[in-house]
Amino acid sequence: VSLGGVLPPLVTPFRPDGSLDRAAFEGNLDVLKDAGLAGFLVLGSNGEAAALDEPEKLELVAAARRALPGRFLLAGTGTESTRGTVALTRKAADLGADAALVLTPHFYRGRMTEEALRRHFTAVADASPIPIYLYSVPAFTGLAWPPGLAASLASHPRIAGLKESSGDVGLLARIVDTVPGDFEVACGNAPVFYPALCAGATGGVLAVANCVPRLAVALYDAFAAGDHSRARLLQQALTPLAVAVTTTWGVAGLKGAMDVAGLRGGAVRAPLLPLPDAGREEIRRLLEGARAALG
Amino acid sequence: VSLGGVLPPLVTPFRPDGSLDRAAFEGNLDVLKDAGLAGFLVLGSNGEAAALDEPEKLELVAAARRALPGRFLLAGTGTESTRGTVALTRKAADLGADAALVLTPHFYRGRMTEEALRRHFTAVADASPIPIYLYSVPAFTGLAWPPGLAASLASHPRIAGLKESSGDVGLLARIVDTVPGDFEVACGNAPVFYPALCAGATGGVLAVANCVPRLAVALYDAFAAGDHSRARLLQQALTPLAVAVTTTWGVAGLKGAMDVAGLRGGAVRAPLLPLPDAGREEIRRLLEGARAALG
Amino acid sequence: VSLGGVLPPLVTPFRPDGSLDRAAFEGNLDVLKDAGLAGFLVLGSNGEAAALDEPEKLELVAAARRALPGRFLLAGTGTESTRGTVALTRKAADLGADAALVLTPHFYRGRMTEEALRRHFTAVADASPIPIYLYSVPAFTGLAWPPGLAASLASHPRIAGLKESSGDVGLLARIVDTVPGDFEVACGNAPVFYPALCAGATGGVLAVANCVPRLAVALYDAFAAGDHSRARLLQQALTPLAVAVTTTWGVAGLKGAMDVAGLRGGAVRAPLLPLPDAGREEIRRLLEGARAALG
Amino acid sequence: VSLGGVLPPLVTPFRPDGSLDRAAFEGNLDVLKDAGLAGFLVLGSNGEAAALDEPEKLELVAAARRALPGRFLLAGTGTESTRGTVALTRKAADLGADAALVLTPHFYRGRMTEEALRRHFTAVADASPIPIYLYSVPAFTGLAWPPGLAASLASHPRIAGLKESSGDVGLLARIVDTVPGDFEVACGNAPVFYPALCAGATGGVLAVANCVPRLAVALYDAFAAGDHSRARLLQQALTPLAVAVTTTWGVAGLKGAMDVAGLRGGAVRAPLLPLPDAGREEIRRLLEGARAALG
Repeated sequence: VSLGGVLPPLVTPFRPDGSLDRAAFEGNLDVLKDAGLAGFLVLGSNGEAAALDEPEKLELVAAARRALPGRFLLAGTGTESTRGTVALTRKAADLGADAALVLTPHFYRGRMTEEALRRHFTAVADASPIPIYLYSVPAFTGLAWPPGLAASLASHPRIAGLKESSGDVGLLARIVDTVPGDFEVACGNAPVFYPALCAGATGGVLAVANCVPRLAVALYDAFAAGDHSRARLLQQALTPLAVAVTTTWGVAGLKGAMDVAGLRGGAVRAPLLPLPDAGREEIRRLLEGARAALG
Repeated sequence: VSLGGVLPPLVTPFRPDGSLDRAAFEGNLDVLKDAGLAGFLVLGSNGEAAALDEPEKLELVAAARRALPGRFLLAGTGTESTRGTVALTRKAADLGADAALVLTPHFYRGRMTEEALRRHFTAVADASPIPIYLYSVPAFTGLAWPPGLAASLASHPRIAGLKESSGDVGLLARIVDTVPGDFEVACGNAPVFYPALCAGATGGVLAVANCVPRLAVALYDAFAAGDHSRARLLQQALTPLAVAVTTTWGVAGLKGAMDVAGLRGGAVRAPLLPLPDAGREEIRRLLEGARAALG
Repeated sequence: VSLGGVLPPLVTPFRPDGSLDRAAFEGNLDVLKDAGLAGFLVLGSNGEAAALDEPEKLELVAAARRALPGRFLLAGTGTESTRGTVALTRKAADLGADAALVLTPHFYRGRMTEEALRRHFTAVADASPIPIYLYSVPAFTGLAWPPGLAASLASHPRIAGLKESSGDVGLLARIVDTVPGDFEVACGNAPVFYPALCAGATGGVLAVANCVPRLAVALYDAFAAGDHSRARLLQQALTPLAVAVTTTWGVAGLKGAMDVAGLRGGAVRAPLLPLPDAGREEIRRLLEGARAALG
Repeated sequence: VSLGGVLPPLVTPFRPDGSLDRAAFEGNLDVLKDAGLAGFLVLGSNGEAAALDEPEKLELVAAARRALPGRFLLAGTGTESTRGTVALTRKAADLGADAALVLTPHFYRGRMTEEALRRHFTAVADASPIPIYLYSVPAFTGLAWPPGLAASLASHPRIAGLKESSGDVGLLARIVDTVPGDFEVACGNAPVFYPALCAGATGGVLAVANCVPRLAVALYDAFAAGDHSRARLLQQALTPLAVAVTTTWGVAGLKGAMDVAGLRGGAVRAPLLPLPDAGREEIRRLLEGARAALG
């Protein structure tokens, strides 16, 4: 199982002028690689992939690969076109990504029927040299995941799983209940990580794992060990910070939390706005609270 | 704890001409009272309260009270006005209801701010002779529950808990995590009953408990006994039927399932449409599947 | 044509204790009856019908009928059940209402398919002694109007028209373009009154007509006379106040504007909140601005 | 006035294998340039800009410039990042575009506050050598346009106007009513083109103008000449086809209509699905109906 455990969707640090700060990116990997994480996602939504051009994307995949030898490396390769997604998936594979995370196309959302998505994912998987994972994140795409779609794609030899980031545990459970046992369903929404594990998620791809990786991993380990009370307790410790670095303050909040935690979040790319001071203070407080739970 | 366990939101059987069939209602209670349920909700959304006039509502409260001596009886008393809700709550209390379930007013949804709702619930609780439970069901009201509202109301001596029916386990967890330990939070969405219990729900008010009460109770009991594997298995057995009698076919489906199960669902009241034959067949099949899980 | 021109959805004044202030209601009619209005709607959304009990509703119909002999009187009679709507429609007819305005049922919104709504309106029209008008107001009901529904109902001898309050001029135009010429389509959204008239609306049922009836009527008259420049100019004068007394401040704003205008808005019924002072000041300013346009 | 009249958002024809068919694109321009259009938009939503890579985008701008000497050429240059948008705008200007149409960034929609958008558009305009037009299309972006944003940007010397494609005539009117007279507001929603002109739109950027340009131009001309009856009649003729090539069938429908009309729509790029035969037949019928209105 590749998504069995916790993976951080790695942030992409920028310098104040908006240029890519690869040294900061590599610095974060140097810390995170020893935190018990099951793997790493580069070019996810929290990696500001939407604001990166292709050379930057490839540079990040290559850098992550070099920094994380032997570790599971997942690269976000979704674009709005099937051909563009195929092309980027192949390039990521060439650079050593172990698998690709393929976001639902969504600009023409009225047309992204279950059938259109099925053909898209199938075409990408057919052409991909590496396994692909489906990726649904309605908060960004505005597109609901059709409940039966995963089951109809799970038999493809190179479609390995799904990252479900809506936070809808009922949807996640219905997906888990209808796919084969080796199809991995990762939770992409930290505030419901423990309930999602109870419902059958194999792991989590969690923004907050960039700044408190050990707490997220401890939660997963407690669940895996059958210690539900501890898992729930760690979830309660994780949630306020997880909400702050996603719903409340977004990527700027997540990067701010990394800065506070001694990693290198760096600037966000405009039009995202910088984290206001009030946000930084709130996050500092929540980070301390979350860390306290680990004792 | 009053919402500790499973409560059915009792359906209101109608005759084919749309008139209230009290005998059928009482017949159902006669069966359900021995099914291990923690209590009973009369005049909920699945009881078609929106389509009942006041004399019918009072008749149902009185009938339920008579039929269920000594059992916890919760009556839905929410209306669009504070004064109307107060009046109906008092009448329900006079007829012996143990507590009132107060739906969020929602017609003027753009104005139903957290402050407006806070004043409403406070005024109702101030005037009520019995404890009240808050009730949020966005699928019907179109109104999202403000995450901080329950915590701000929980100190009222007559506000005892919340029925949260959105199915958003993350929201339920955040509420549980911020209210005092004696504030009860019931899950009103059967497909997430087990994950909601994991997140801290005290019980469930579940439409599907009208037709498979023992299965719902067995799920709760398994969770209460710490048997997570069995709880998850029973959840998987429950979910397809639960979806069918709510999201897919609505109250007509729920009543159809009761008919199939040997209870008396009866007709729905127009403008709800009768259950089509295809729905009845699907529900028959799902009901058999669900029952099989109990062995 | 009955909806040809401007009709106010009459507000329901309450005393500070929340009781019905019929004298204030009648006082408003005494002023409004000479303002050039084509008719009057009692028990509409802006009349807080959702917060009235049935005796209050009947009292208001009777009072309006007495105060407005010979004038077109439309009464809102929609409830969540077909049988309840039929009953109230008959009572309103008995009290002298010329026609009934029937809101879409909406609590079970997931089930309110085009077919369910068609049967509901047909059943009400079949049983009604007076013509009925369909009524769609998604801002309150959360229910979109199916574009083809009006055309399929227009042949019923007692379905006379539609009040379309979404503000979607494209939808209104598509309805107008597909119904017979004698099916009246009224615009229920003042900020698009002039464009809606251009698209074929026969008139308007406009909240703001409670406080600036002459301005609304002047807009209609300018359009009817083919004076598009003046109609657009009057629309520009009307819009800011119209937005303030609906979207921005709701019924409390509308009632506040009536108080400022020398009519008797009175209190709103809880859970609606009273108009804050800032709202009253803004509305006073906008009312003066709107009136200035009439010269 | 540059957006005074009708502009087509040019489609981008693809070969069956998904590659760009520049000859078909140029063939369309050869026909459209003599149809009375006020200008041309390349790289709009209907041009499938979301599915084009940058070299393709630049090739299309260059081709359009060559084919349309002396005509107003607007190029879509919006991306998810401010720096990417600036870079593409400069390249489009270098290739001869007269102005740039800048779509609202929207992936991080929860963060696209009025302030974030204001800074984005200002930064792009500051850096752009050519005028820019703001572009809101909620059907694709899922982002509502803040009513006051245009007015706050209109004083920028290189922000020339707005393309408002929501179809919300009330919003368009409020924008028109609050910007200086030389700030152009184009309607991007053909079914409300005539009402939008009544409300003050300066012109229209209309998908359907790719296949029936003369009808769209005739509608505009009738309005400009003060002939409201003819304008409304032409609107009624235009609407069914306009709905079919956008809401009902999307870009595949628009391209199908062009094929039927003797232009070269070509294939869509996956994941968009090809037009089914039923769609082609419906569109053929609607196209004939629309053309008949011109006599």
